[in-house]
Amino acid sequence: MSSAPFPKPSSRRGLGERALAMIDALAAISADDGALTRLYLTPEHAKAAALVGDWMRSAGLSVRMDAAGTMRGALPPGRSGRSANKSLLIGSHIDTVIDAGRFDGNLGVVAGILAVEELTARGVALPFGLEILAFGDEEGVRFPVTLTSSSVAAGIFDPKALEATDEKGVSLREALIAFGGDPSRLSNEAYARPAVLGYLEVHIEQGPVLERSNEPLGVVTAIASQSRHRIRIRGEAGHAGTVPMDMRHDAVTAAAEIILAAEEVARKGKKHSLVATVGHVEVMPGASNVIPADVRFSLDVRAATDDARKAAVEEITLFARRIDKRRQVVVGVETVLEKAVATCAPRMTKAIAAGIARVQQAPPRSLMSGAGHDGQAMAQLCDFGMIFVRCRAGISHNPNEWVSVDDLGAAVEGLVATIEELARQEGEAK
Amino acid sequence: MSSAPFPKPSSRRGLGERALAMIDALAAISADDGALTRLYLTPEHAKAAALVGDWMRSAGLSVRMDAAGTMRGALPPGRSGRSANKSLLIGSHIDTVIDAGRFDGNLGVVAGILAVEELTARGVALPFGLEILAFGDEEGVRFPVTLTSSSVAAGIFDPKALEATDEKGVSLREALIAFGGDPSRLSNEAYARPAVLGYLEVHIEQGPVLERSNEPLGVVTAIASQSRHRIRIRGEAGHAGTVPMDMRHDAVTAAAEIILAAEEVARKGKKHSLVATVGHVEVMPGASNVIPADVRFSLDVRAATDDARKAAVEEITLFARRIDKRRQVVVGVETVLEKAVATCAPRMTKAIAAGIARVQQAPPRSLMSGAGHDGQAMAQLCDFGMIFVRCRAGISHNPNEWVSVDDLGAAVEGLVATIEELARQEGEAK
Repeated sequence: MSSAPFPKPSSRRGLGERALAMIDALAAISADDGALTRLYLTPEHAKAAALVGDWMRSAGLSVRMDAAGTMRGALPPGRSGRSANKSLLIGSHIDTVIDAGRFDGNLGVVAGILAVEELTARGVALPFGLEILAFGDEEGVRFPVTLTSSSVAAGIFDPKALEATDEKGVSLREALIAFGGDPSRLSNEAYARPAVLGYLEVHIEQGPVLERSNEPLGVVTAIASQSRHRIRIRGEAGHAGTVPMDMRHDAVTAAAEIILAAEEVARKGKKHSLVATVGHVEVMPGASNVIPADVRFSLDVRAATDDARKAAVEEITLFARRIDKRRQVVVGVETVLEKAVATCAPRMTKAIAAGIARVQQAPPRSLMSGAGHDGQAMAQLCDFGMIFVRCRAGISHNPNEWVSVDDLGAAVEGLVATIEELARQEGEAK
Repeated sequence: MSSAPFPKPSSRRGLGERALAMIDALAAISADDGALTRLYLTPEHAKAAALVGDWMRSAGLSVRMDAAGTMRGALPPGRSGRSANKSLLIGSHIDTVIDAGRFDGNLGVVAGILAVEELTARGVALPFGLEILAFGDEEGVRFPVTLTSSSVAAGIFDPKALEATDEKGVSLREALIAFGGDPSRLSNEAYARPAVLGYLEVHIEQGPVLERSNEPLGVVTAIASQSRHRIRIRGEAGHAGTVPMDMRHDAVTAAAEIILAAEEVARKGKKHSLVATVGHVEVMPGASNVIPADVRFSLDVRAATDDARKAAVEEITLFARRIDKRRQVVVGVETVLEKAVATCAPRMTKAIAAGIARVQQAPPRSLMSGAGHDGQAMAQLCDFGMIFVRCRAGISHNPNEWVSVDDLGAAVEGLVATIEELARQEGEAK
């Protein structure tokens, strides 16, 4: 690898300040006053994409917006070799949730652009091309579909999604056309597999692990296997004063048992990063003096492998079925969403680990990503890898989302070092 | 006792049909088309009271409406003796909840009137007077106060309640005046203790115990000691995918533990008729992918003694406090209502048990009343006793509330037999 020695690397603090200024500039582009809300294919999305395009051009990239509204900025390889006809894709998203934090997604795009600048400044000649991607639909807030833009890039977009409509009845197809995209050209926008070296993404952790372990960066091993279920328990209403305990068919005590069972099952699965969450609960009729007849609650289960997740769901469901008989209530379990694990490629995690180790001066921690990311789509196109960045208190999807300036700098450095590691890999294998 | 042998007692079925016809006639007097709703001091209440007054007069009672809107029908003693200056009060209420059942309250008033008729028809000369009371405010639906009419009769009415207002801003004072009552005379309406022999009430069980044991009637031992609490658990919100199980401060799993602990404590207190109910639960923020930060739920605890109820609440609260530390959440327990037990007088339960035993030809079951009744107020005036009547599936406060014709007949017979037992007690003690 040819890390040119003459131009001095930027300081971590300098890179962090630069990153924060760009993230702040993006955060100012919002549909809401005093809050950050930037949905797919809206005027705000267009403004943010234009700003990102300007930065890409300043960094020396040749820029175009693809038919799905993704900004793509390409840098040709710096030297010849067996990977010279391949590009390493680096991306994240510039759409946000409603009343969002500023780092989620945006950091990954900014880090990609700054990495290009830094590599160029240092005179690094890469044996492959780089392409920075600013996706527009990771959060899936406006339409009842998600990962539209990365699915298009990965060649796995299902055209049926074009008929999905937003709250105002505008279809994804109509919104795309109004934005300047082209529904008829989406299938042409897929990368050819042989032309792609892999996909890299920098993203805030959105969890508390790195903060707890006092490390700025971590290596993602996989985006979790996930399923979401609706559980409904039908018991029998009754007067809180007149029905003896042994004659009750109380839906809420049955629910409480299942909620604790789900927690217990997840706790046992720590080595598979198993987590189970009951976030939504409705108790009916809901009067303090009436025994609940009907309880509905959500169950969200995630794990580092599909098998671990499926086994956990089965164990929880089995427990629920047994309650059914013991408490004489009717328990129904419905699966409403199921996503397979997206495993990071060993060569990517190896490069990330080596890169980050140089930045942190210690071998980094491996983490599962419990949240979904564009990498889930990109994993179906190519090897993918992800760098997690520590965020304060693990808070995300919230204006209090925060990453320190030093950690922003470390994120850019880690991405640069990872790219250099990949260049070394390509060089060695050459 | 002088149960005259010549006039034949009415058949149980005949009494039951008579009772049902009267209950149906009352059920036709409603504020709502196609549903039974009759609130305190409304035009419907006035109509129902007038109809009850007509029936009382037909039964030979001298009738007046008291200053709180209670219909009172008095029958002088049939013979002289040491109890001749006392009256046995028999009553229940003619107000209902919204979309009510027809038997709750109304049955007790109708049973009292039919008992007078039956005793008269049989030529029974009682050694004490009888007074049938049709109270107007047991359900406490219109105003945020309850047991107004029985509290006035018992001499425990708190005049501050006159300032309570209904949904439209009408005060109890104004409503009483508009109804023809007299707020200034309420304190004069209290019975003098020496003039009262006791208070008897026939009421549907509103629970499943008598149906399960296949008995039409039961003896109430007490109206439960009751308290109502608000429990709030504050944990920490977090992403369902990114916060490992051992870093969570999940408010809903903490709540689940407390809900199950409350159930367990109540189950252990079967001999004190202990019941604990969590009927209202709110989980916030309530998204399926967010770990709950804030859970609020109600806890209703009732028992046959104040001590048993207080000990149970203490045990549950102690458990909640321990969770507090173990799960690192903040648990708050607030008491919003506390009612002391109203114990039935042994001489009343003895008379009821003997009376019912004659009707059912088997010693009756003793039950705690988990629901509140006018007897809670009347117990502060005099000895009180209550007869429970089996109702279908324990359903109450619902149009599906139902009592069979035979059980209605048995209820009147049970009341007549109880009055005869009390007359026998008074005769023996004479």
